[in-house]
Amino acid sequence: MAAELVPNKKVILKNYITGFVKETDMELINSDTIQLKLPEGSPGMIVKNLYLSCDPYMRSRMSKHDEPNYVSEFAAGSVITGNGVSKVVYSGHPDFSVGDFVWGMTGWEEYSVITYPESFFKIKDTDVPLSYYTGILGMPGFTAYIGFYEICAPKKGEYVFVSAASGAVGQLVGQFAKLMGCYVVGSASSDEKVDLLKSKFDFDEAFNYRKEPDLNATLKRYFPEGIDIYFENVGGAMLDAVLLNMRPHGRISACGMISQYNLEKPEGVHNLMHIIANRIRFKGFLIFYYYHRYYEFVEKIIPDIRQGKIKYVEDKVEGLENGPAALISLFKGLNVGKKLVVIAHE
Amino acid sequence: MAAELVPNKKVILKNYITGFVKETDMELINSDTIQLKLPEGSPGMIVKNLYLSCDPYMRSRMSKHDEPNYVSEFAAGSVITGNGVSKVVYSGHPDFSVGDFVWGMTGWEEYSVITYPESFFKIKDTDVPLSYYTGILGMPGFTAYIGFYEICAPKKGEYVFVSAASGAVGQLVGQFAKLMGCYVVGSASSDEKVDLLKSKFDFDEAFNYRKEPDLNATLKRYFPEGIDIYFENVGGAMLDAVLLNMRPHGRISACGMISQYNLEKPEGVHNLMHIIANRIRFKGFLIFYYYHRYYEFVEKIIPDIRQGKIKYVEDKVEGLENGPAALISLFKGLNVGKKLVVIAHE
Repeated sequence: MAAELVPNKKVILKNYITGFVKETDMELINSDTIQLKLPEGSPGMIVKNLYLSCDPYMRSRMSKHDEPNYVSEFAAGSVITGNGVSKVVYSGHPDFSVGDFVWGMTGWEEYSVITYPESFFKIKDTDVPLSYYTGILGMPGFTAYIGFYEICAPKKGEYVFVSAASGAVGQLVGQFAKLMGCYVVGSASSDEKVDLLKSKFDFDEAFNYRKEPDLNATLKRYFPEGIDIYFENVGGAMLDAVLLNMRPHGRISACGMISQYNLEKPEGVHNLMHIIANRIRFKGFLIFYYYHRYYEFVEKIIPDIRQGKIKYVEDKVEGLENGPAALISLFKGLNVGKKLVVIAHE
Repeated sequence: MAAELVPNKKVILKNYITGFVKETDMELINSDTIQLKLPEGSPGMIVKNLYLSCDPYMRSRMSKHDEPNYVSEFAAGSVITGNGVSKVVYSGHPDFSVGDFVWGMTGWEEYSVITYPESFFKIKDTDVPLSYYTGILGMPGFTAYIGFYEICAPKKGEYVFVSAASGAVGQLVGQFAKLMGCYVVGSASSDEKVDLLKSKFDFDEAFNYRKEPDLNATLKRYFPEGIDIYFENVGGAMLDAVLLNMRPHGRISACGMISQYNLEKPEGVHNLMHIIANRIRFKGFLIFYYYHRYYEFVEKIIPDIRQGKIKYVEDKVEGLENGPAALISLFKGLNVGKKLVVIAHE
């Protein structure tokens, strides 16, 4: 007997785009259905998506790539994919059971068929909000953890600068740096976020870069001794100004450059000579190559979350139909904290 | 009784400059004299300069620095300084004796007073040409050694690209890479140099970048599998093209960016996102922080030089009066091999 068909709303990418992404580049499709069962013997699973993560890197998947890229393009005309928190509603895989909460690469749709369940993390700690697994306990939080502790190799007392500091990654990096005894300054795109950085996340200082006409002068004001560690999230003009202010042996870790993703040609960075003059290590990294250490991270950070030692701010929108606008808000700097889309609560 | 005064020709920097350096920015002064003796009890020494090294970084010392730089400016109106090979003619220092050959930071003049002899290296092996200590056995050679073996962390079989490959540093890097079993391609600014790279220095391939309208396409032709290691000597457009062609886990070591030194504003580099996408480590270094390991380097390389396993090409000019033109030739790419000025042979 065939399983029942249920409706399955989804958001698709209509066509590959260039320039700034618009809501009309995506479309909500209401007409699809799905059968919540896989053929006998299939090792896949079907998940009900609860929370969808809006992440800057997703923009690069919306353009046709001329050069090979670390993530493939979305399939034009097909559902957008991204990290999400989901509940298993059907499983043909021995490691996953119906009712399990998981996170991993899912679709922007109500239900997704997961062909390789092994690529998902099972959520073991459910006493914290499940939505946290799109952010502080998911890919962005783990990015902050590896990027700061591993790539930046910080030492107590060092001067740390974080751009996009109120975002999903930046807010964590700043708090990690403070816990280590560093001096931490963050930049963000609004006064509201600047307040949040100082009042909630305990940054020593923060500034609204949109109000600073000369970023080099701004950085000199906040870092009269220079910057030891720059956690790079934005690229472009900010990176150029940072390069002028790095201290000898400075470290730059780069996991993203959000200011560049919507440009047809990335901005030029002019001050790379300072990498030589100050013997800087500029290291790019991709978090999924560290995923074998993910549970180590959760074990370390979750007590601090429970005890309130580490704070976290989410910016949630409800409803798949609001997904496209939510994603775009990232690139306009309109999100305050981790942006995510709530599809269902359970 | 006062010691005899001897003539001491010198080359001075007339004024701080912007833009492309010209011969008239420097001047030969014929009127100076020097007494070849220091006051009783002085720990300094006086050296007779034999060979003066022309090095790209010297250009940056000719401009007034807006931002702190790893080397100070020359003193406008005073003698130009740089690495040179010299003979001690007076010593108040217990470690140096009259007749010793040394190399270190000296003046572009016939005789120099050295206030801190400790900053000089004594030349122990004199069976090779003394001029080699401006290049293969001096700062550039040691730069190639540390930059390649230490900063690039090469492995047998890797794909290596060297820019400014026939220069003092590049020719060594290429040969080190070949000795390690790497595939090596070099770029240079003339067909003559390209021939030299392939016929003398054993590069697998080489190209004249001035004949290549699309450096990205050129690199794809020579590196269909991509580049593991880029030894950066030039910066600018070449770096931008290289970034498009790096392999995952690629390493870029940077000790200089000669294409940028004469520009009022350095070129923009647009493809830094590839540092993230390919998890590249881009590391700047300054060789003088490694000088405590200099003799280790000499001991390793000198047998290979004696046995002809490592080749070396110099481009010498005779006479201090030809120093300014010699230095400028570097930035025009007119030198073929290590550029140096011969002041005296002994």
